Amino acid sequence: MSYFDVASGAPLHPVARQALLASLDEGWADPSRLYREGRRARMLLDAAREAAAEAVGCRADELVFTSSGTRAVHTGIAGVLAARRRVGRHLIVSAVEHSSVLHSAELHEADGGTVTRVGVDRAGRVTAGAYRDALRPDSALACLQTANHEVGTVQPIGEVGGVCREAGVPLLVDAAQSLGWGPVGGDWSLLTASAHKWGGPSGVGLLAVRKGVRFAVQGPADERESGRVAGFENLPAIVAAAASLRAVRAEAAQEAVRLRELTERIRARVPGLVPDVEVVGDPEHRLPGIVTFSCLYVDGETLLHALDREGFSVSSGSSCTSSTLTPSHVLRAMGVLSEGNVRVSLPTGTPAEDVERFLEVLPGVVAGVRETLGTSTPVTTAGDTELLVDALGKLCPLPVIELAKVIGDVPVGGLVRVLSDDEAARLDIPAWCQMRNQEYVGEEPAEKGTSYLIRRLT
Amino acid sequence: MSYFDVASGAPLHPVARQALLASLDEGWADPSRLYREGRRARMLLDAAREAAAEAVGCRADELVFTSSGTRAVHTGIAGVLAARRRVGRHLIVSAVEHSSVLHSAELHEADGGTVTRVGVDRAGRVTAGAYRDALRPDSALACLQTANHEVGTVQPIGEVGGVCREAGVPLLVDAAQSLGWGPVGGDWSLLTASAHKWGGPSGVGLLAVRKGVRFAVQGPADERESGRVAGFENLPAIVAAAASLRAVRAEAAQEAVRLRELTERIRARVPGLVPDVEVVGDPEHRLPGIVTFSCLYVDGETLLHALDREGFSVSSGSSCTSSTLTPSHVLRAMGVLSEGNVRVSLPTGTPAEDVERFLEVLPGVVAGVRETLGTSTPVTTAGDTELLVDALGKLCPLPVIELAKVIGDVPVGGLVRVLSDDEAARLDIPAWCQMRNQEYVGEEPAEKGTSYLIRRLT
Repeated sequence: MSYFDVASGAPLHPVARQALLASLDEGWADPSRLYREGRRARMLLDAAREAAAEAVGCRADELVFTSSGTRAVHTGIAGVLAARRRVGRHLIVSAVEHSSVLHSAELHEADGGTVTRVGVDRAGRVTAGAYRDALRPDSALACLQTANHEVGTVQPIGEVGGVCREAGVPLLVDAAQSLGWGPVGGDWSLLTASAHKWGGPSGVGLLAVRKGVRFAVQGPADERESGRVAGFENLPAIVAAAASLRAVRAEAAQEAVRLRELTERIRARVPGLVPDVEVVGDPEHRLPGIVTFSCLYVDGETLLHALDREGFSVSSGSSCTSSTLTPSHVLRAMGVLSEGNVRVSLPTGTPAEDVERFLEVLPGVVAGVRETLGTSTPVTTAGDTELLVDALGKLCPLPVIELAKVIGDVPVGGLVRVLSDDEAARLDIPAWCQMRNQEYVGEEPAEKGTSYLIRRLT
Repeated sequence: MSYFDVASGAPLHPVARQALLASLDEGWADPSRLYREGRRARMLLDAAREAAAEAVGCRADELVFTSSGTRAVHTGIAGVLAARRRVGRHLIVSAVEHSSVLHSAELHEADGGTVTRVGVDRAGRVTAGAYRDALRPDSALACLQTANHEVGTVQPIGEVGGVCREAGVPLLVDAAQSLGWGPVGGDWSLLTASAHKWGGPSGVGLLAVRKGVRFAVQGPADERESGRVAGFENLPAIVAAAASLRAVRAEAAQEAVRLRELTERIRARVPGLVPDVEVVGDPEHRLPGIVTFSCLYVDGETLLHALDREGFSVSSGSSCTSSTLTPSHVLRAMGVLSEGNVRVSLPTGTPAEDVERFLEVLPGVVAGVRETLGTSTPVTTAGDTELLVDALGKLCPLPVIELAKVIGDVPVGGLVRVLSDDEAARLDIPAWCQMRNQEYVGEEPAEKGTSYLIRRLT
């Protein structure tokens, strides 16, 4: 059994488990009480806050514990937008942020605010210039992840922080994927993170708000956590979160080198082992443990199930996974193929043999899934140099499979027109063309669905 | 060591601890994932929801897990108020609700809504008639706790539920203090609770919303917990919460009888053991494990510290405790004395000997604290039958102590005027008069502070 989905959630670190057990006995009482159980709980809470603040690189009184990373993001964004409402109601986010950031942005728009979504390059990376262009006099807040959760691309936080500072606009950095690897440098104003991503327990997020950043807590008043987080403190989990953050940091430098080498093996060897594969994400600026690739002509959900049967737990940003019916917004923003998408994110301590075994079984698994995907899509000829593929009602990856099957049937310079009503086709057909060096001519609305036009070049 | 503050938070039940440990290994993964760790987590989550729903008395798909009882209340109230906005913006709460309800009500008022706070009798109890009177055509929601957290008084949920149903207004019941003792009967529409009150872990609240109740989730969208609770599920804690709820319910009937007898001992004997004590809360309609009393002429914080030194952890709604600078809103609504207030809330399993030892040490502790409170308040004569006590700058309980000291110095029918700038005096001086059978004439604004007028009757 190899669990390769640590970007979703890490198994509990042994230090987290130890700390959790110890503080179940010592830290269950109300830390605001004056009796000894309360005082003990308060001491544990204070010590956890000191430790977490040191790891984050902020003052203890700038840091509060939330109930999740998502809640930290929601609280952080809402707090700044409310406090800086007089400055303006413009919010800047990157197009590849976590859903907690993007959903906050949607809520802000629904409430009358404006949002700029900064685009990324094909590797999933923003530029400081794009943030500079997005900044306006009425900008209240900018948000940027330290590293992307789906492809591992590391963002230029330092440069974007400088640009925001120059403009006097606070920057919220979502460090959910990177905080275990090290503190976030640069000029950030708010930072959010999630303990279960670094091996802490679920139920704990971090929100740091630098002194001097205007912040107005939203929601009903509550005296806990400097008034920023309502409800009884989840103390044993907080203690475990802080202890495990220190523990993973102590191992981080060494483990980063090791995991980077393992993910580099996958990056380098998968394209040779499996035909029609595209490795996505930045090859240089990337997290040590994440590697993502997309396999043409494969149904993502079937691929995940097949890998699961082989003992590998991975996730997918493919449009074909049941949990998300639309293709990953990250892959879409990067303009890369979403079909047959596989994200491998290695926990610390992953043995090299597990990665080798993954590389051994992957080619057979992909080939097996490809075999099962027979198509029976009607293809009609429209003149000598044009074919029409009617893929209405067919879901990803069938439209692309059919396109690949027939492109050789038209002469070079000829056209294939694919009729599809699957939203994924809009992303996958252009991505396939780029990958296969064919020309994507464009799309036209059709009577049903959309008509995609492809010219054979090779 | 006797921890007598289970109404703040209970130590972890052994079953909760077991379940937590087991699901740390099995339930850390993302329950929305398709691989085996995810499927296992999903099964644990589903089973916990089934178990909790059975204990609550609702359908599993009506119940979600929040990160705390406070968060359950905030989410529940905000969701109904938003969904029923067309009906109206009137909210009904009792004056003795938990701060999470009252703070939600304040936020609603700040946002332009209207709130009726239903008063209570001297025992802290509402009447169904008072709720009927409060209901209006524009009432969106009514809230009522099942039992009070400071004095243990059980509310007439069944009758209030009937009145609300008649009016077609949903009733949210806050069952934080009672859910471990049994399901909540009557016609409730929403129910909230908090696991760490029944011996579950902190970090878990329950929110049940009956099918058919209009509900609109507020805040950024999120797909977890039927879209009602944002953020990664705190699964091991959820599993532990559900398991311990079943466990405490299995012991509830027997333990209720035993604890009720123990708190009855305190109710019956404290007034004989300690002079100038008032036991507060309903003697009949009350939780098994809570008993509250107030000691005249005692500084609450000093009393808590003295009891702590004797090995008893209790809490206080007194204005003299450092965590709350204003007197408890519950005691204020009841019109009872807040000074020297002590709440004893017994955990299940409390041995009778601990309660006996508490009764042994209490008289000496109170006497000791009373001795330390020397006063040096200037008293001046104003005519033959009036004394003026200048207690400006003196904090609770000094103004009342001084009043008690001098009342015998005026003839029956004579007046004492107490000048005080401590907010607690407004509550405590009338409460003292009622307790001591003296006439509280009223208050007048003074140049500094307030002047309270008392006529000697006996």
